Amino acid sequence: MPNEMILQKQKQAAEILQEKNIDMWMTYVRETGNIKDPMMDMIVGTGATWSSAFIITKDGDTTAIIGSLEEANMKTVGTFKNIVPYLKSIKEDLIAAIKKHDPNKIAINFSRNSTLADGLTHGLFLELSDYLKDTPYAERLVSSEEIVAAVRGRKSPAELELMKTAIVETLKIFDEVTEFIEVGKTEKEVAEFVRGLVKERGFGFAWDEEHCPAVFTGPDTAGAHSGPTDKAIQKGHVINMDFGINYKGYCSDLQRTWYVLRDGETEAPNEVQRGFQVIVDSIQMAKDAIKPGKLGWEIDAVARNFIVEKGYEEYPHGLGHQVGRKAHDGGALLGPRWERYGNAPYIPLEVGNVFTIEPRLTIEGFGIATIEEKIVVTENGCEWLSPIQTKIILLKG
Amino acid sequence: MPNEMILQKQKQAAEILQEKNIDMWMTYVRETGNIKDPMMDMIVGTGATWSSAFIITKDGDTTAIIGSLEEANMKTVGTFKNIVPYLKSIKEDLIAAIKKHDPNKIAINFSRNSTLADGLTHGLFLELSDYLKDTPYAERLVSSEEIVAAVRGRKSPAELELMKTAIVETLKIFDEVTEFIEVGKTEKEVAEFVRGLVKERGFGFAWDEEHCPAVFTGPDTAGAHSGPTDKAIQKGHVINMDFGINYKGYCSDLQRTWYVLRDGETEAPNEVQRGFQVIVDSIQMAKDAIKPGKLGWEIDAVARNFIVEKGYEEYPHGLGHQVGRKAHDGGALLGPRWERYGNAPYIPLEVGNVFTIEPRLTIEGFGIATIEEKIVVTENGCEWLSPIQTKIILLKG
Repeated sequence: MPNEMILQKQKQAAEILQEKNIDMWMTYVRETGNIKDPMMDMIVGTGATWSSAFIITKDGDTTAIIGSLEEANMKTVGTFKNIVPYLKSIKEDLIAAIKKHDPNKIAINFSRNSTLADGLTHGLFLELSDYLKDTPYAERLVSSEEIVAAVRGRKSPAELELMKTAIVETLKIFDEVTEFIEVGKTEKEVAEFVRGLVKERGFGFAWDEEHCPAVFTGPDTAGAHSGPTDKAIQKGHVINMDFGINYKGYCSDLQRTWYVLRDGETEAPNEVQRGFQVIVDSIQMAKDAIKPGKLGWEIDAVARNFIVEKGYEEYPHGLGHQVGRKAHDGGALLGPRWERYGNAPYIPLEVGNVFTIEPRLTIEGFGIATIEEKIVVTENGCEWLSPIQTKIILLKG
Repeated sequence: MPNEMILQKQKQAAEILQEKNIDMWMTYVRETGNIKDPMMDMIVGTGATWSSAFIITKDGDTTAIIGSLEEANMKTVGTFKNIVPYLKSIKEDLIAAIKKHDPNKIAINFSRNSTLADGLTHGLFLELSDYLKDTPYAERLVSSEEIVAAVRGRKSPAELELMKTAIVETLKIFDEVTEFIEVGKTEKEVAEFVRGLVKERGFGFAWDEEHCPAVFTGPDTAGAHSGPTDKAIQKGHVINMDFGINYKGYCSDLQRTWYVLRDGETEAPNEVQRGFQVIVDSIQMAKDAIKPGKLGWEIDAVARNFIVEKGYEEYPHGLGHQVGRKAHDGGALLGPRWERYGNAPYIPLEVGNVFTIEPRLTIEGFGIATIEEKIVVTENGCEWLSPIQTKIILLKG
């Protein structure tokens, strides 16, 4: 991430702190090579070895308290105004830096609801609580959940530009897959072809390479979140692929559906067309329902109920998630009110949020129809961020 | 990591649970694409999206409780005997799986001392505590610190083989750097050359690519843990490089020192030779002091005191750390008794531990002399894992 974007994000964070009336936000980490708080890339731009505090205040002051061996690096990185190096223990410098601002609250990165606001490990929480136990500040620690959701969720124009480019590059690869697919090729072969293109072009993967892309052909596939198998593409298969790249730190995440014509067919059979159309329509209906202030579960219900009304089983996941530096990003989720989603379906949508819309349904005997599109929430509704799929892609068998 | 090695590590974990009299070890995670418990690669071998529990008991039973969409993938990965998929909430299945074993203690991954045993985020700790609050098990949660230290620290022969290969490949690259270095080239150019070789050969980086390798030339360098700069190599410079690769999941981590001859010189000046020799001797003395049961701070003190006695400033870091799947691995550390190292310098060394030995000192006016070697602890002492550097590498100016 270019430093300029990090400084912008810090500025945005200070504004959000003012809005939420929280005086200080502290990202507290160590050995980020072993386990890294997801906020580090966005607001720091480098790692840390020893216990380190990265502090942003609501007046925009920024302070990094770090092991002395990392002082020179932190200066070179240049994203923090005040750099406080320590040799033996962070405790004294940490307390001094907090006292200087005497914050009403200190937001730290723990959250039951959002994994992106939950980068503080429990051991580090205990350490921090111990260091602050003789000060008034131990009692002023609060979750940074709302701050993280806003900082990550409200995309700047520069962030949206990167995401659009990521989408364009991803759809080029989908087009190349359309040319590559043929009867007899396996899911693994398609995935390998895609991974080759990603590496050749110097992109990263939006998620774990093992499942990126995920490729499913025909009936009785392994289901979402599985790696591609040795199953071969056959005539009469519905094929889908879930895939995204990481382009300069920002992710895409898209799905498309194909159908392989059987002998004598010039279009997909009725039941395939019908299932596919239900997906297309449910996406459009969800898109039409999105606007700032709506709750994610309300949007999910629009698509979910429509699909069930049409006689299909409901999809066993949320309708859509935010995307950003991570494939699953931000706070609010277009998901059902299931315990596993915590409070994420209850967070109001905000201008600048980027969501996927990705319902799925099974077409018995053929495979799974699923499309994944992307929208950005605007003042009055939302806009497509990706050119949408409206017709199933037909392949000669 | 091949599944075979994961199954071996699970078996070793069960033995360690017996040794420590802890009935159950649970790695509790979610959205590992955003933040990943460092134990996942070693004992699971795939990621997880929704709250998931990976349980190993002291009788060697293994249970994965995961979101239903990841059931097929978990079966394909094949590292857990019992797979329990859930749709809406993990709570009931989690409690049932624990009750079945009625453990005396449940080790979970939090630790003030070891970041590798501290993969449980504070938000997930709160979730887990809440789910278990009406059972006897909330009170039986303990730190997995000792288990993680043993599982990661006691290297199997298969692990040592991979680490040796990583070292051989790393030293080949050091040799190529010796050929590449010349007056006028910058630290950044050397680093770029090295990164090119790593990528060409399909290796990973042992740590953050930005600082891997770290290259320092001449006096007044930025210091350890900094990225390479535009500073150019000059005659009379002492140069050092800190570099490691990731080879099939296992890391190397080595340092070597060069000297660029000035006009008329055929060897390094006395003060350079003297400083370099102090480093060589301190490494040998530390190596001679290592055996099972010794404490890390005792070993650190051997090298540290010797360097100070010889009139140099003490190094502002630990003498050495464990290496494994991470460049900084395991529990015990060859470090001084400074607060920032927690209890790590007080943990007894064990057979199979792999440590770096990496003292440093400044040669005024020339640069920094530092060598990093690797040893493995044996029944009676320790053995070099890397061919050692005993002479400063001379380069024609």
